[in-house]
Amino acid sequence: MPEAMITPKQLRKFLAPYRITDGKGLRLKDHGPHDTGGLASQEKQKAKDLLARGVDWLADAQGRLYADDRWSVLLIFQAMDAAGKDGTIKHVMSGVNPQGVQVVSFKAPSAEELDHDFMWRCLKVLPERGRIGIFNRSWYEEVLVVRVHEALLARQRIPAELVTRRIWAERCEDIVNIERYLARNGCLILKFFLNLSRGEQKKRFLERLDNPDKHWKFSTADARERGHWSAYMDAYESMIRRTATEHAPWYVVPADNKWFSRLVVAAAVVDALAGLDLRYPDVGPEKLKELAEAKRMLQQEED
Amino acid sequence: MPEAMITPKQLRKFLAPYRITDGKGLRLKDHGPHDTGGLASQEKQKAKDLLARGVDWLADAQGRLYADDRWSVLLIFQAMDAAGKDGTIKHVMSGVNPQGVQVVSFKAPSAEELDHDFMWRCLKVLPERGRIGIFNRSWYEEVLVVRVHEALLARQRIPAELVTRRIWAERCEDIVNIERYLARNGCLILKFFLNLSRGEQKKRFLERLDNPDKHWKFSTADARERGHWSAYMDAYESMIRRTATEHAPWYVVPADNKWFSRLVVAAAVVDALAGLDLRYPDVGPEKLKELAEAKRMLQQEED
Repeated sequence: MPEAMITPKQLRKFLAPYRITDGKGLRLKDHGPHDTGGLASQEKQKAKDLLARGVDWLADAQGRLYADDRWSVLLIFQAMDAAGKDGTIKHVMSGVNPQGVQVVSFKAPSAEELDHDFMWRCLKVLPERGRIGIFNRSWYEEVLVVRVHEALLARQRIPAELVTRRIWAERCEDIVNIERYLARNGCLILKFFLNLSRGEQKKRFLERLDNPDKHWKFSTADARERGHWSAYMDAYESMIRRTATEHAPWYVVPADNKWFSRLVVAAAVVDALAGLDLRYPDVGPEKLKELAEAKRMLQQEED
Repeated sequence: MPEAMITPKQLRKFLAPYRITDGKGLRLKDHGPHDTGGLASQEKQKAKDLLARGVDWLADAQGRLYADDRWSVLLIFQAMDAAGKDGTIKHVMSGVNPQGVQVVSFKAPSAEELDHDFMWRCLKVLPERGRIGIFNRSWYEEVLVVRVHEALLARQRIPAELVTRRIWAERCEDIVNIERYLARNGCLILKFFLNLSRGEQKKRFLERLDNPDKHWKFSTADARERGHWSAYMDAYESMIRRTATEHAPWYVVPADNKWFSRLVVAAAVVDALAGLDLRYPDVGPEKLKELAEAKRMLQQEED
């Protein structure tokens, strides 16, 4: 997204390599985590300036989304640890009025959550019309960590006869159906897979271990999960193949360079919101008359 | 369901005329509201005795459902006013431990509910595993009253470009998909349309108007809705055609005779729960040893 690239068409072109609306045959190894869309690292400052402009635009668009009160926006983030989910959310959304945004982080499910269908805890906190909801992890955990660690599936107490070899395909199908339902009801869904390399994760983990301010972000479990790296990559690939759709595209975002991944995410959100043609509600002649009358009354008021 | 009819096979046969798992070509006019399944009205007492036995059986089955803690049960009731939804729920479920049952009545949606997708308010109160949830009205209102009174659709503030002629078909498709998802996760769904005749509704309304104890149950809006009777019947017919499935069958229950409609509903719930083969969890030798040890300790305790 060099500086000139600001028309909607150019934005779309910049995003094209990362936007997946039909996952058939997708191979993650064709998507390099280190890709920077042709931008050299000496253009990093330019990228940051562009990000800042995108953030400003988003802050303004959120006001119109809120006033229009018809669409809701759902941004889903999935990634391996240290891929930069938290940082991306912070840097892309920090300019936006918090009244119009809610971030929900999904951790290990509670007993009450396990007693319901696997999407329940997410569905009940979907954003209202006029608002942006951000899911830091989501129902996709159910075909990622639960797939890699099948012991987690047993904890869900699903009747044994319903747990077949088809369960991961069925879960993806159900997710696609529910996302289509949400889209039909005015929910704009964007899904981001922050695609980190195993080597970059190691580097970031070591940085955390060397920086006392970041120790709280580290647990030995995180390091253990690295041992399942290829199982995770298989699960991500299979998930994206099955759940990338026009109504809820996946963005496979190269995540080894934070400055670039943030730019891609901001550009995708700008692109999607721009497509909605959000406007402040029209005020008809009737309403204008009312407003004029209110002004007259206020002016005539005795202090 | 004459007295001898107590084998599962006979129960299934009794229910067959009312159970719809494929709605293609269904015509409501082929389903008489006055039908009593061949039982004469002098057999009413026998029917009541059978109902009582069914209720006892359900109370016991609910205990096993709760202990087994894998399945949940969702009973959906839809009907015109005065068809007997409240009475049926009361008479069929009153024997069951309230700890294992929750009834949710859906009225006109609140502002918060209107700000979400139309199934949101129902999805968030689905029964937990081991429990029976009863929906007195449900997401089906969205293709019934909202279809008959399209002004209600406008209140949902769905973006105009998404409101097409296909909206009722799409809503039914989305409901079918979500019910399949729930079924795959261990939710047993039964749907009851209490099929009342227009004449019987008039009779019941007049009874309410003549009985001061029942005045609270009447509003003039109820009488006004009678004017839309045929639009409602078209909406019910179209809804059942599109949403009757193996994983979530509709029961079209003749409702002009309360003693009969209650018997059909009880029989359907018995039939469905019997199919689950619910058992109290097995206690293995390890656990038995633990229990014996606990008993020994209790007995040795000094008072």
